[in-house]
Amino acid sequence: MVQNARLQVLGILVVCALSYPAMTIAQQPALNLMPLPANAQPGTGSLVVDSSFTVSFTGYTEPRLERAGERFLRQLARQTGLPLSLKTPKTPKATLLIQTDHAGKEIQEVSEDESYILDVSTASARIRASTPLGVMHGLQTFLQLVDVSPGGFSAPTVTIQDKPRFPWRGLMIDSARHYIPLDILRRNIDGMEAVKMNVFHWHLSENQGFRAESRKFPRLHELGSDSLYYSQDEIRDLIVYARDRGIRVVPEFDMPGHSTAWFVGHPELASGKGPYDIERRWGIFDPAMDPTNEKVYKFLDDLIAEMARIFPDHYFHIGGDEVNGKEWEANPKIQAFMRAHGIKNNEALQAYFSGRVQKLVTKHGKTVVGWDEVLVEGVPKDIVIQSWRGQASLATAATQGYRGILSNGYYLDLGWSAARHYAADPMSGDAANLSAEEKQRILGGESCMWAEYVSPENIDSRIWPRNAAIAERLWSPQEVRDPASMYARLDFVSARLEWLGLTHRTALRHMLQRLAGPASPTEFAALRTLTELMEPVKDYTREQTAPAVPTSRTPLNRVVDAVSLESDAGRRFGELVDQYVASACHDPAAEARLRAQLEIWRDNDAILQPLAQHSFLVKEVTANSQDLSALGTAGLAAFDTIAKGQPPPDSWKAQQLAIIDHVKKPKAQLLLIPAPAVQKLIEAAAAGGACSAAKP
Amino acid sequence: MVQNARLQVLGILVVCALSYPAMTIAQQPALNLMPLPANAQPGTGSLVVDSSFTVSFTGYTEPRLERAGERFLRQLARQTGLPLSLKTPKTPKATLLIQTDHAGKEIQEVSEDESYILDVSTASARIRASTPLGVMHGLQTFLQLVDVSPGGFSAPTVTIQDKPRFPWRGLMIDSARHYIPLDILRRNIDGMEAVKMNVFHWHLSENQGFRAESRKFPRLHELGSDSLYYSQDEIRDLIVYARDRGIRVVPEFDMPGHSTAWFVGHPELASGKGPYDIERRWGIFDPAMDPTNEKVYKFLDDLIAEMARIFPDHYFHIGGDEVNGKEWEANPKIQAFMRAHGIKNNEALQAYFSGRVQKLVTKHGKTVVGWDEVLVEGVPKDIVIQSWRGQASLATAATQGYRGILSNGYYLDLGWSAARHYAADPMSGDAANLSAEEKQRILGGESCMWAEYVSPENIDSRIWPRNAAIAERLWSPQEVRDPASMYARLDFVSARLEWLGLTHRTALRHMLQRLAGPASPTEFAALRTLTELMEPVKDYTREQTAPAVPTSRTPLNRVVDAVSLESDAGRRFGELVDQYVASACHDPAAEARLRAQLEIWRDNDAILQPLAQHSFLVKEVTANSQDLSALGTAGLAAFDTIAKGQPPPDSWKAQQLAIIDHVKKPKAQLLLIPAPAVQKLIEAAAAGGACSAAKP
Repeated sequence: MVQNARLQVLGILVVCALSYPAMTIAQQPALNLMPLPANAQPGTGSLVVDSSFTVSFTGYTEPRLERAGERFLRQLARQTGLPLSLKTPKTPKATLLIQTDHAGKEIQEVSEDESYILDVSTASARIRASTPLGVMHGLQTFLQLVDVSPGGFSAPTVTIQDKPRFPWRGLMIDSARHYIPLDILRRNIDGMEAVKMNVFHWHLSENQGFRAESRKFPRLHELGSDSLYYSQDEIRDLIVYARDRGIRVVPEFDMPGHSTAWFVGHPELASGKGPYDIERRWGIFDPAMDPTNEKVYKFLDDLIAEMARIFPDHYFHIGGDEVNGKEWEANPKIQAFMRAHGIKNNEALQAYFSGRVQKLVTKHGKTVVGWDEVLVEGVPKDIVIQSWRGQASLATAATQGYRGILSNGYYLDLGWSAARHYAADPMSGDAANLSAEEKQRILGGESCMWAEYVSPENIDSRIWPRNAAIAERLWSPQEVRDPASMYARLDFVSARLEWLGLTHRTALRHMLQRLAGPASPTEFAALRTLTELMEPVKDYTREQTAPAVPTSRTPLNRVVDAVSLESDAGRRFGELVDQYVASACHDPAAEARLRAQLEIWRDNDAILQPLAQHSFLVKEVTANSQDLSALGTAGLAAFDTIAKGQPPPDSWKAQQLAIIDHVKKPKAQLLLIPAPAVQKLIEAAAAGGACSAAKP
Repeated sequence: MVQNARLQVLGILVVCALSYPAMTIAQQPALNLMPLPANAQPGTGSLVVDSSFTVSFTGYTEPRLERAGERFLRQLARQTGLPLSLKTPKTPKATLLIQTDHAGKEIQEVSEDESYILDVSTASARIRASTPLGVMHGLQTFLQLVDVSPGGFSAPTVTIQDKPRFPWRGLMIDSARHYIPLDILRRNIDGMEAVKMNVFHWHLSENQGFRAESRKFPRLHELGSDSLYYSQDEIRDLIVYARDRGIRVVPEFDMPGHSTAWFVGHPELASGKGPYDIERRWGIFDPAMDPTNEKVYKFLDDLIAEMARIFPDHYFHIGGDEVNGKEWEANPKIQAFMRAHGIKNNEALQAYFSGRVQKLVTKHGKTVVGWDEVLVEGVPKDIVIQSWRGQASLATAATQGYRGILSNGYYLDLGWSAARHYAADPMSGDAANLSAEEKQRILGGESCMWAEYVSPENIDSRIWPRNAAIAERLWSPQEVRDPASMYARLDFVSARLEWLGLTHRTALRHMLQRLAGPASPTEFAALRTLTELMEPVKDYTREQTAPAVPTSRTPLNRVVDAVSLESDAGRRFGELVDQYVASACHDPAAEARLRAQLEIWRDNDAILQPLAQHSFLVKEVTANSQDLSALGTAGLAAFDTIAKGQPPPDSWKAQQLAIIDHVKKPKAQLLLIPAPAVQKLIEAAAAGGACSAAKP
């Protein structure tokens, strides 16, 4: 799960320009919903949403539902600017009538009924659901339906019958490598609610920090967190907050590796001699718990007992990933234990440990979740495997009778495009060939926000909006997979998410202001132009290319920390180039738009220079800025060549492609996204004869 | 104080293009400080600010100082993106050493020592101050000094000796007409701290709401606030929050007028028969307290006693403005009382009331502050007059021995430019001729944010950044008054204020997104282009031009609610036109830049049309959009005419000026700011001979 993992995962290829089978929902593009519902029947006309809008409940109610109603009204007011009464009286007369059959489980369960029916007519709207969970999903759907229209705010008439494809739809946030304040976690939970995710997987311990208060073992957080931890009251509040939004909270205490921070206060748990300090670097390290020490299990028994009381969820994540075994191999006592008990290797030793811990977790009423590595021979069947190293392990687990969730393909920190995440499906690959019973064992998936390069300031922009595409993958029918439709709706939902307080769009500007210092509007615009076309290097290359060994104390204030993980401007430019090339280079409107952009790029570096002179942070991207100008010049040269209607000499093509090759090389850990699109223009120009021949 | 006040105030004219006397601080433009300090001696070199930056205290300390230190470090970390330790150990070794002589007053007083000395050398920095108040100001100055530089973050070396010009530098927020949530008040108090304001005047009661919890008379807030009020605990917390930032909190309970909301629960206080409802409209209304009813004074005695305990400040604002007297005139009992006691008119009756209330306030240990109207014959000399109707009354009050603060010229809701507010000076006009002793009575001033057209969403943008210019007026030496320098620094401080969580820049984009609904990037850019060039109508014309009678329930989601009160883009265009015309129409670079903008304007309407088709809120500005295109066309025609080098026919000028006249007419309650600048281009073109004759 760390960025420098040695197992380079084989991602599912993004499929961009292909057409997909017809969707089950006929008028889908008309509804700006994300995730798309299982079934939607649009009507004609719309329901006016004005200041008289009201909500009321019938059937079963509970305080949580009333709070959901009030939260919905507050959000609707924010979204429309209308002053709405926040009351939700129990009358059958209301603009939106909510009918709930019965209560949900006191502790939310994995396969609870989350379905709902939403009817919107021109006169009123109604949500019907078995449980409060369905109601909450229906309310989010309604919020997405409401938009400005010629006659005021309104929601289109529609009948939606909806339910999730998978029961486990999670987001994991690593708040251990970098501490993430509670208000930021809360707004991300708001975002999860908006896109119907239902599991917040809270990664609470790491080599770099133990972030949960333990009253039983206070040295864990006192010595292992730099005073940056969540108190038990704060944790309980967050769990209530999440439950209010139909979201379970699954804690993760990673063991026996990834646990250096535990050993600062409790070196007796470790396999090495100690003493230990909080780890500041990133990567896989030697310290690991001693599986041969009975005191370790006594300690874990007490700690799991304490944490099991705080976290009500039925599942408890014990990590289990990336143990390198070096401390075990260096410890004669452990080696002797292994020989005495016939434990052949480190993997078997970890299996022994996992088995012991699994029993403790069971004893305290919970079911174990663990990363891939915990799946070894003899592990009890009731554990849940979280698959990160490859999709195959998910199918393997299901075949062997284990339940699993997919995270491979959903690592938000790897910088993949939304489309690439979107193409990853828990039921594809080996899983496609499973029996119906085996398929049932695949519970869903979780996106993962690992936090080596994540700060409170930029975390929202590392999670959103791409996480919404993953949420759709896990909720909507499998055949909903057109990336063009996804992107169109993602733009919409991304803007909406900012109404919840998420800062994935605004943070960029703030960070650029810091980078730029005092700048003229023109200079600042030039910085935006450049940075909006760049993305950080992908996958696990960031650490490898770092200018100095990165640590948890490295400032995350560089351009690479500010830019989006997916460049919308770059994507749009690419789409326009594709359209132009597909028109056999004969679309004057597309050409004009492309030329206008290329001219701006060509001239951008000269404008940006003064900023680079006075800011070391802008100076770092000097070469990228020159590359952008080169790209502008090359693109314009391609158009000039196309205009001539004749193929240029081969030397021209070679020369131009050399420029592209240079531009494609990452600089300052950044990629200039339009390079391949400009390359297409050059190749079209080089094939000028063919291109012009295709003209009508 | 309301926007439809009948006394149209005569504003001080904004003086834009004149040059000012040399400033006392020689290298002022080099320091991006606002407010500018009383004295600054820049050195050479700079102090590096990196992750090793520390703060420590010597001399007197108190928890408030330690919190200030931690807050400073947190802000510095946010501003630089550096991970800083938030500890402030008591050692003499630190990057920034803070030396405090002694404690401040337990209850902050008006004329406490707020001075400080800040020395920045290449090795370290030091703040010395008599009291914690001076320290806090020094910390804010240091924060403004730190910026990105070629070698990292740094602060320039400098010695600053600073103290405020006036001891009373306030911001009034009306949270009665529209309730403003506490987190928004808090971030505005953060903004006040950043620009060294020291009084938060909290307007808590109005016709439209009684916003403070009264345990003595709970019907006041229970029936008079639509459940939107501040609990006593919340009020106490806010007072602590403000005190932590060197800011006094002066409560205002407006009486005997502006008090309809009181009468909903307590009709017995009123002069009319009742019953009363919370007022929803804006303006001056008839309901007023009955000055002849002894029960009113008993009630006020108890209420003031209660509030005086909650608000520790030595001052207590009783309002006193805009009583129209109609209820008094219609009440025979009141009329009989007036005859019996020789009270000649309504003004005298109000004086009688004010005198009685003033005694109650004094009894509870406070000094009265009141608006202009309380200053009538016989009022005790220790009250403080807040001058809103005109600057003359401030001088009159001082002559008569009253202390006063200026708010005329500082009404943020009137939509004046920062330069116009900046030109208003408490010591100008009649005050300039006062004796030294009389001048001492002018304590300072307060900007006022009246809230008829203010929502939690847009209030930050109605206050900031213009309030920073007023803050400078009240802190910096009188001769600091160059608007060009002010604007250059205001741009800088405005960006910095967003680091505090203020949303004066980001809110516009959110509101435009709502207005636009789903829009392409190009369409959205066109909406930005238009809206960034518009301002709401000025002074008290908004209600007069409203499409329907505005009330407290009118949605504030229109373009007029979203756009800035001062258009930076419009101002910059105007400056560039001035520069071009001053060059005798011979500055090709300026011409190119102006033409580029005019072309964008000309073409903007066509791009915006699709949005106007699907959004009623964009549709409202259709005429404004057409005007902008007309302005673009007219400006380009002026350049074409200038290029010919010959004066055009008179008919051309008349035709073009007719366009400008049309454009200048407000539409949708909005002004298109560049109209006068384009008019200058037309006039320059019409005088083409002269213009070209001046060419070298």
